[in-house]
Amino acid sequence: MIRVTVWNEFRHERHSPAVAAIYPDGIHEAIARPLRAAGFSVRTATLDEPEHGLTDQVLADTDVLIWWGHTAHHEVADTAVDRVQARVLAGMGLVVLHSGHFSKVFKRLMGTSCDLKWREAGERERIWVVEPGHPIAEGLGDYFEIAEEEMYGERFDVPPPEALVFISWFQGGEVFRSGCCYTRGAGRIFYFRPGHETHPTYHHPQVQRVIVNAVRWAAPTPGVTLAYGHRPQPLERLR
Amino acid sequence: MIRVTVWNEFRHERHSPAVAAIYPDGIHEAIARPLRAAGFSVRTATLDEPEHGLTDQVLADTDVLIWWGHTAHHEVADTAVDRVQARVLAGMGLVVLHSGHFSKVFKRLMGTSCDLKWREAGERERIWVVEPGHPIAEGLGDYFEIAEEEMYGERFDVPPPEALVFISWFQGGEVFRSGCCYTRGAGRIFYFRPGHETHPTYHHPQVQRVIVNAVRWAAPTPGVTLAYGHRPQPLERLR
Amino acid sequence: MIRVTVWNEFRHERHSPAVAAIYPDGIHEAIARPLRAAGFSVRTATLDEPEHGLTDQVLADTDVLIWWGHTAHHEVADTAVDRVQARVLAGMGLVVLHSGHFSKVFKRLMGTSCDLKWREAGERERIWVVEPGHPIAEGLGDYFEIAEEEMYGERFDVPPPEALVFISWFQGGEVFRSGCCYTRGAGRIFYFRPGHETHPTYHHPQVQRVIVNAVRWAAPTPGVTLAYGHRPQPLERLR
Amino acid sequence: MIRVTVWNEFRHERHSPAVAAIYPDGIHEAIARPLRAAGFSVRTATLDEPEHGLTDQVLADTDVLIWWGHTAHHEVADTAVDRVQARVLAGMGLVVLHSGHFSKVFKRLMGTSCDLKWREAGERERIWVVEPGHPIAEGLGDYFEIAEEEMYGERFDVPPPEALVFISWFQGGEVFRSGCCYTRGAGRIFYFRPGHETHPTYHHPQVQRVIVNAVRWAAPTPGVTLAYGHRPQPLERLR
Repeated sequence: MIRVTVWNEFRHERHSPAVAAIYPDGIHEAIARPLRAAGFSVRTATLDEPEHGLTDQVLADTDVLIWWGHTAHHEVADTAVDRVQARVLAGMGLVVLHSGHFSKVFKRLMGTSCDLKWREAGERERIWVVEPGHPIAEGLGDYFEIAEEEMYGERFDVPPPEALVFISWFQGGEVFRSGCCYTRGAGRIFYFRPGHETHPTYHHPQVQRVIVNAVRWAAPTPGVTLAYGHRPQPLERLR
Repeated sequence: MIRVTVWNEFRHERHSPAVAAIYPDGIHEAIARPLRAAGFSVRTATLDEPEHGLTDQVLADTDVLIWWGHTAHHEVADTAVDRVQARVLAGMGLVVLHSGHFSKVFKRLMGTSCDLKWREAGERERIWVVEPGHPIAEGLGDYFEIAEEEMYGERFDVPPPEALVFISWFQGGEVFRSGCCYTRGAGRIFYFRPGHETHPTYHHPQVQRVIVNAVRWAAPTPGVTLAYGHRPQPLERLR
Repeated sequence: MIRVTVWNEFRHERHSPAVAAIYPDGIHEAIARPLRAAGFSVRTATLDEPEHGLTDQVLADTDVLIWWGHTAHHEVADTAVDRVQARVLAGMGLVVLHSGHFSKVFKRLMGTSCDLKWREAGERERIWVVEPGHPIAEGLGDYFEIAEEEMYGERFDVPPPEALVFISWFQGGEVFRSGCCYTRGAGRIFYFRPGHETHPTYHHPQVQRVIVNAVRWAAPTPGVTLAYGHRPQPLERLR
Repeated sequence: MIRVTVWNEFRHERHSPAVAAIYPDGIHEAIARPLRAAGFSVRTATLDEPEHGLTDQVLADTDVLIWWGHTAHHEVADTAVDRVQARVLAGMGLVVLHSGHFSKVFKRLMGTSCDLKWREAGERERIWVVEPGHPIAEGLGDYFEIAEEEMYGERFDVPPPEALVFISWFQGGEVFRSGCCYTRGAGRIFYFRPGHETHPTYHHPQVQRVIVNAVRWAAPTPGVTLAYGHRPQPLERLR
């Protein structure tokens, strides 16, 4: 059974009644619910827990980590970032959502600024499937719509994705690479664009479907061998 | 000096007064003009010339071939397709424009249906630069607009591009991967979306700029070695 | 349950006692056995059956097709190639083995010559895992060895793989991209190098492991939507 | 004219007579000489200069930075790493050589450990060209040999390269992805494997040729637009 940890900054929901009205139990619980329904073993962790809820033990017991953060990226300790990076390189999957593009964890793993254009205007977003055979597109149609979302626009400053699954169209005139796959070490990473805290995006059935699919895709391959370092004896001489 | 051959089906311009009004000398001449101004050595070739104007000699003297076709893809002889494919594998650059997505040459080199969605409604197209450091984006801004164009929409059935330079936004609600780079053999291929015959797209300065940039990018690397076949002696035994 | 069809040319085994001694039931049966043990539903098909055993019905009932051919590539009917290509674009997985690099099916889907260097000298091949987290590397160590194999050497004239899982080292001095992943349409394609008919390669446990892994990886994503063609109404006007 | 800065740690040459015998003026001067002969404007910078020779002004005047380091990666100040990263994202090219794989600069831009296997045994290395049409392979044959080099072996823990130009064969039995291309922001990055300080590798004409080619390939595209941040007005409303 795939073990998922949903990490959430969990600040907006406690400070903004408007956000709390949409996500009364926190964004992490809204994300966790459909994952539990899909049969995964799901726990949550939040910024203000000790070690941000991301102890060595929690990470060791996590197959796929989901990350939502926005206003407090700088409060995440570098030691936690180090731990998450090490676990991804060893094979843990990572799903980064929406404003998580600016998280320390994502920037560390991408090596770029991860900057973009943005506008909060409640625009219609239409998410087009450009790789219909990709496991993350399972069960989606040609496209799906989110009635009102924050706009994110290109240039999105990330390395070219190894697979580009979705492209978003925005009412105001922009486009965005909304579903981007990466490999770092033995780990698989998926960035998924939607999810501004003032919109009920994580209650949207197709958004939930994408996150379920992404967890399955990002779950580690068993039996990975990572062998580095000094090899004093040539293999050919050892024979 | 880079030697360019602009290939055009050249049927719409001779049969439709509306198209002839936009391209009185043919689409190929509109494409050729800014390439000549950029200092390339440019010739043209059209479907109804003997061997479609693509003799062995012409291809041998071509560094980059540009392809525009639409209504008569099926009239292109398979022997011409074989010749173009062989030259691309040997290093010739290829720039495929707009409805050339359905040409035999492009389908042969892609291995897919190259199908897409389309609508002729004179919609606004906004072409976003997603790789601002790519040579084909040289001198462009953040994006550029074409006032009225045919819509092409995803899913575009091509292999994932090795580099994706542009994404188009369309007024009617679709998106499209508008600038796609590929390598086939020693040759570089660029697919560029705009250019419906009923719109003056090839008179647009930024469209012209992209085609000039694409020719420079696709021009062959000198001194390519392609060595295949039987190697009876192990290199290690020959020492 | 994943439904696999193992296609084999099945000529060497009937004409060469040396090959028949290694593969008394044909290469297809040696490939099929570990796939059955892995729990897949497996059938076989060979060149000299009617329609090469690849009727519309067989292909419709196939999730992943495995392809081994060598001396009779030209005898495969173009209609069969058309059918296989169409099924791959619609989502069927394809695993191409060894000399299948020159099959019509693989060349059609790659768009290149698929040429390479080769030598039959019974050399040691050491297959290195370069993407240890890839599903096709599941359960393998750092590398595995094949005591004696035909050499295949670079340049291998294929499009750059979307993921490169293995690189082979050969005793005689060459290297080869031995495990190459591609997407064509909704289908996933894996090329795997080893398997010359005069060596017992398909009895090698790690070679069998790779083929089992590749079938799982290439199996189609359910619920794929492929929608192309005329879209007369802008989505934005339909709202 | 392309402006190159060759950065070298410059420690081995001052502390080891054996290394000084090979590179009496430092590795940086051996690298710089063929670049000057190729017509580039070349300066050098070394670790023990103020700010490691990498002031804002020097970086602003650099089109392509070459990096060689080995024993003192940890002595490079994080502020210098920050500056180099920012310049790469803005378009500066970066060529990382040999043991520079473990430099802070390269690890920052890759997001991975950049670890590998190694052995100092003076083995023969044969560098195979797998992308003969790539600009960095210009003028090379099928492969070239280095008589004696340190071995680097896979798994090399980097993100999958966007283009893989070279693969190395080593006498002792390993392989390595020796020429790896990346895009980060608007900048192009090339990692090139050879160059252990105890071997005269940077006097090898084909190694020099590769570095010259890599500088040309990595030189920035002019006129790059990088626009990020708040876009309060929808483009469609501004019309």
